[in-house]
Amino acid sequence: MTAPPWVYDVWRLPTADPADVSALRERLQRDPGYEVLAVMGKTEGNGCVNDFSRTLAAHAYQHFLQDRGAGAPDISPLLIMSGGTEGVLSPHVSVFVRRARRADDLPGPALACGIARTDEIPIDELGRLGQARAVKRAVLTAMRDAAIENPADVHFVQIKCPLLTDARVLEARGKGLSVATDDTYQSMAYSRGASALGVAAALGEIDESAFGDEDVCDNWTLFSSVASVSAGAELSACEVLVLGNSESAAGPLCIGHAVMRDAIDAAAIRDAVASAESAANLAGDAKATIRQVFAKADPAGEVRGCRTTMFNDSDIQATRHARAAVGGLVAGQLGDPMVYVSGGAEHQGPYGGGPVAVLLERPV
Amino acid sequence: MTAPPWVYDVWRLPTADPADVSALRERLQRDPGYEVLAVMGKTEGNGCVNDFSRTLAAHAYQHFLQDRGAGAPDISPLLIMSGGTEGVLSPHVSVFVRRARRADDLPGPALACGIARTDEIPIDELGRLGQARAVKRAVLTAMRDAAIENPADVHFVQIKCPLLTDARVLEARGKGLSVATDDTYQSMAYSRGASALGVAAALGEIDESAFGDEDVCDNWTLFSSVASVSAGAELSACEVLVLGNSESAAGPLCIGHAVMRDAIDAAAIRDAVASAESAANLAGDAKATIRQVFAKADPAGEVRGCRTTMFNDSDIQATRHARAAVGGLVAGQLGDPMVYVSGGAEHQGPYGGGPVAVLLERPV
Amino acid sequence: MTAPPWVYDVWRLPTADPADVSALRERLQRDPGYEVLAVMGKTEGNGCVNDFSRTLAAHAYQHFLQDRGAGAPDISPLLIMSGGTEGVLSPHVSVFVRRARRADDLPGPALACGIARTDEIPIDELGRLGQARAVKRAVLTAMRDAAIENPADVHFVQIKCPLLTDARVLEARGKGLSVATDDTYQSMAYSRGASALGVAAALGEIDESAFGDEDVCDNWTLFSSVASVSAGAELSACEVLVLGNSESAAGPLCIGHAVMRDAIDAAAIRDAVASAESAANLAGDAKATIRQVFAKADPAGEVRGCRTTMFNDSDIQATRHARAAVGGLVAGQLGDPMVYVSGGAEHQGPYGGGPVAVLLERPV
Amino acid sequence: MTAPPWVYDVWRLPTADPADVSALRERLQRDPGYEVLAVMGKTEGNGCVNDFSRTLAAHAYQHFLQDRGAGAPDISPLLIMSGGTEGVLSPHVSVFVRRARRADDLPGPALACGIARTDEIPIDELGRLGQARAVKRAVLTAMRDAAIENPADVHFVQIKCPLLTDARVLEARGKGLSVATDDTYQSMAYSRGASALGVAAALGEIDESAFGDEDVCDNWTLFSSVASVSAGAELSACEVLVLGNSESAAGPLCIGHAVMRDAIDAAAIRDAVASAESAANLAGDAKATIRQVFAKADPAGEVRGCRTTMFNDSDIQATRHARAAVGGLVAGQLGDPMVYVSGGAEHQGPYGGGPVAVLLERPV
Repeated sequence: MTAPPWVYDVWRLPTADPADVSALRERLQRDPGYEVLAVMGKTEGNGCVNDFSRTLAAHAYQHFLQDRGAGAPDISPLLIMSGGTEGVLSPHVSVFVRRARRADDLPGPALACGIARTDEIPIDELGRLGQARAVKRAVLTAMRDAAIENPADVHFVQIKCPLLTDARVLEARGKGLSVATDDTYQSMAYSRGASALGVAAALGEIDESAFGDEDVCDNWTLFSSVASVSAGAELSACEVLVLGNSESAAGPLCIGHAVMRDAIDAAAIRDAVASAESAANLAGDAKATIRQVFAKADPAGEVRGCRTTMFNDSDIQATRHARAAVGGLVAGQLGDPMVYVSGGAEHQGPYGGGPVAVLLERPV
Repeated sequence: MTAPPWVYDVWRLPTADPADVSALRERLQRDPGYEVLAVMGKTEGNGCVNDFSRTLAAHAYQHFLQDRGAGAPDISPLLIMSGGTEGVLSPHVSVFVRRARRADDLPGPALACGIARTDEIPIDELGRLGQARAVKRAVLTAMRDAAIENPADVHFVQIKCPLLTDARVLEARGKGLSVATDDTYQSMAYSRGASALGVAAALGEIDESAFGDEDVCDNWTLFSSVASVSAGAELSACEVLVLGNSESAAGPLCIGHAVMRDAIDAAAIRDAVASAESAANLAGDAKATIRQVFAKADPAGEVRGCRTTMFNDSDIQATRHARAAVGGLVAGQLGDPMVYVSGGAEHQGPYGGGPVAVLLERPV
Repeated sequence: MTAPPWVYDVWRLPTADPADVSALRERLQRDPGYEVLAVMGKTEGNGCVNDFSRTLAAHAYQHFLQDRGAGAPDISPLLIMSGGTEGVLSPHVSVFVRRARRADDLPGPALACGIARTDEIPIDELGRLGQARAVKRAVLTAMRDAAIENPADVHFVQIKCPLLTDARVLEARGKGLSVATDDTYQSMAYSRGASALGVAAALGEIDESAFGDEDVCDNWTLFSSVASVSAGAELSACEVLVLGNSESAAGPLCIGHAVMRDAIDAAAIRDAVASAESAANLAGDAKATIRQVFAKADPAGEVRGCRTTMFNDSDIQATRHARAAVGGLVAGQLGDPMVYVSGGAEHQGPYGGGPVAVLLERPV
Repeated sequence: MTAPPWVYDVWRLPTADPADVSALRERLQRDPGYEVLAVMGKTEGNGCVNDFSRTLAAHAYQHFLQDRGAGAPDISPLLIMSGGTEGVLSPHVSVFVRRARRADDLPGPALACGIARTDEIPIDELGRLGQARAVKRAVLTAMRDAAIENPADVHFVQIKCPLLTDARVLEARGKGLSVATDDTYQSMAYSRGASALGVAAALGEIDESAFGDEDVCDNWTLFSSVASVSAGAELSACEVLVLGNSESAAGPLCIGHAVMRDAIDAAAIRDAVASAESAANLAGDAKATIRQVFAKADPAGEVRGCRTTMFNDSDIQATRHARAAVGGLVAGQLGDPMVYVSGGAEHQGPYGGGPVAVLLERPV
């Protein structure tokens, strides 16, 4: 998929409902030269087990892109739909696209996006080491796809992974297979956790030999600083999108990141901006524009020593609480509610915290 | 209730559950010289119609204070319980207390707290002009109680007001009385709205003759910049707590405020800090400590031109969404999740926004 | 669409998720001679405003039927998706099909199904007289389609109608149009109510001149005994499915109905069975089999003088409460949880009650 | 507590809100000769972890009974508050009372009620064998209290048991204690399950030596046919109320029971009525009146081979679904929505089912 020097772009487009592809249709009419690598959506369901807004969006974008033939020839575009737009968060899609480099493009290093897919995750490997290893391999494939060699140049790895529905749990029982958990909501956490450990292993943040099944969703000292994982019932393999800066890429975009140590870590958001500015290598007092933010929100029963009620609330799931709060903070800090905040950050940043990445556009 | 020059204090105390009075018990044992004027709680229910955490807290604090005889002799302490600690918000009470001034107290102007109660609000006046007028009178009474003469010195007016339960709606029907609405959740909005217009009238922000029943929850150009109203099924009158700075008061505390123009207005939080610092009249480079923040969160279907899903979410009420988001922003800005954020800001600040007040402690 | 003497059938098929069309695919492979008139689904969302399970199911069945060309040549199949499978209710679709009569078919009268569509309902007519009139005309069209002349032979009229989303409310404001309500959840009730009044007018249950806009969702003495209406964001016209017994139809199926006077009216369920048995005109002690039940569930703040909490529960919408309770009763009475129970029965049966129809299969 | 021959009565009283004691106050004024043994309430919260309606009711009834001195002299009345009145269920209390027998009372066998309390359940025994043993001992004590010798005469054992809140889980961690689960919602299931196994052991339904910690909430072949357990955050010991028929008791009331094999088992409700009628030993064609029904509702992912969505619904907890459905069935069968249906029937009846007991009044 790689080969020519690419210019990558990210189009952030509002959606009127999960099935709304109109803004992308319009944009592709205006910019027909781009091929679509991935659509990463914030859809407006509950982000939990029975969130059909994700499936609906995936159906709609898949039909649209199939009809158009919009993807690169050798891999179909990733559809990474993350549910949950609580509070001020605004439903939208970030569409990752690329075109061949032109002479007048800003030279790199610049944003590069790589994609990959694992095979189907067997039911009894979901939320376990097997899933982590499959993800690790896919992350390395996606880095090659993006022409990023140094793990330090990777600033965000978005993964969409499967979960255990009741039907899958029953299927496992029928086959005599053990599963990581038979609670469907909890299986989302295990699947996200194993995926994140796979990212950490791929980037050398932790050693693959250092953890086993029992560490998933238990040993919180193990984590990746750039992994962002979202689970959904609409797929059975893992899809990987790697975002980083590559010497081979060109164009005005750059990415950086930082790690929120808890759900109210405003300083980390500023650090992520600084990280991206540093990657952008701005001349003099040039000022870059923030194009998008990607953040993870992790529920916690205590924040800076104060009790929260996220885990005791039987009416609203903890991930919804966390997403709403972190969404309010990120949107407020940057004055923009159309940001990507995804909930449930097991092994994605430290316990209660999570990665935050910032996409900048350098002035031309 | 006024008379001697007072020193007012505000104790912010965590609660382990809505009925937990242990932290206040302990504090009063350590500081027996204070009388309790009001307990303003953030309890952990849904903040909507069937939020029994408010009633439970009111019961527990009422029993505790009655047994102790903790209040001023001439008025029983106000119990203003506001439900909803979504996201990172942490359940707590702010206890407003006072003691007679001593020679070594920092001279004023300083924080002063005044309280008052309306008569029972008749069912057919709830959410209407009648309620607004009753609140206006009570605000003026509370200002006198606090020895604040200039409305500009009032920085926060917290009101607890009743709502229409199904039982009250049926009672009204039985008596042939018209009600503002027969939707119980909506009646909370009307009651909050009418109360806020009463505050605005009392402080000269709007003219009482300028509005009628039909403006409540409809004409959003009318609002108070300092009103904060919370509705609950546990009372049938309105209770008013006025916070401001008074020449007659002494002690280290000062209060200021600003108005958030929408739910992501981080600048307004900084402005509120500046307003309080200005009132504190700090010498040289002295630095005050933030002791507490009081803010309102208002749901909105659109924030800075971006669609939100608060009003389309049939699983989570809009006020819960708003409280979670604004709570995340305020807590993140100030690094503290034990702040007071109350939801549903009808006529409390502009549509979609709301007042935010900051309580500072001057260094001694 | 009518013409030849038809045999109508109803296939009740379980679904593994809202997009699952596999059981229908399989059935049509086995029985290729049938054409599909309508798919009436019980999907597993919240049945309220943001229920994307309905849209997802509609997308999936539409794609499936388009690809197959399964419908009658002159009208595309109706897709009536009703959200909400609370409690024991089991997600499924009822597929209404027909084939030309054969010599050995049981002679009629037998079940006949007629379908029709209104034009798009203008935003300012939704929930009002205009919508009722459009539905009335469509019901009469569908009766002709089913070759049912006598309104007394109509036992169930299922309608799918639009609602007002935030976007539509804003659109109306922009155009200066008045809407029945600007509360999206409430608009579902108005749309259902106006549709039901249209059914009642079509069948002569009430006189069209006897009601106006102001009666919708207010004058509960006006209702239809056979209307069942479900609202959804996925369409902007009304779709009508008429079920009754026709002399022109043949085959083993018959339908009957009764009216539940409240949500715990078990006797009405038995009456509906008796009504269908009477229509089946069973010889001697022949025993028919219950093939499916269609019922409406209406929230009520009081049932037989006892207070319920449906309307005071700010965590679960009232229609979800009602559907769960009536679903439990119907499923328990008949020993079968895969029944159709739809929530929100405004003008569909008396206040707090609703129609219940029973489909029987006569022994051959 | 036993001694004189008693007449037991059960007063079923509606409540306007969880703290409403007015109906009991009135009843005790009319019937001052009774002492109160237990108040068993259906309160209107979510029945899950953060259900403060239970605590509020417990507070209110405790204050009321303390002030009155209404209980028997040697034991304070049990306050068993079970949250959740979904669907048509109507909030109420069943007050178990007794007075000394008079000459004209109907002779026994008649309803007898016995009560007992365990010691505080240690955090690391909650949901385990230790809790089951403590409950077993308490059940035997309560049987003696009721003068019931034969376990076959016990028809309902209601238990209120503690759960693990976040605070208790943290406390356990601090002390290095292991807990059955650290998911607060799940801890309710474990606590209910261990309690039910204790009942089964006490009544000889299973042998105490036949199970261990690992069977709790796992080995569903072990269950009691009369246990009904409700968990709540408002207590830390278990409270036991045994209901049965005793030769020593007098009066018109009798109790019987049956076991629902699943959530739609209408036949079991009829069987329970028959069981009570048999105990009542009615002469000729005398007809008894149903005074109250006590039933358990158990969530299940499949009912009679049909998929339900209770466990996949991340917006509404499974116990709420089950309670709504079973409540609809029981209320419909008996024409009365003020029945006691409690959710989460782990080891209380078979998986997916639960006990149902019927209280009859014999004609005088």
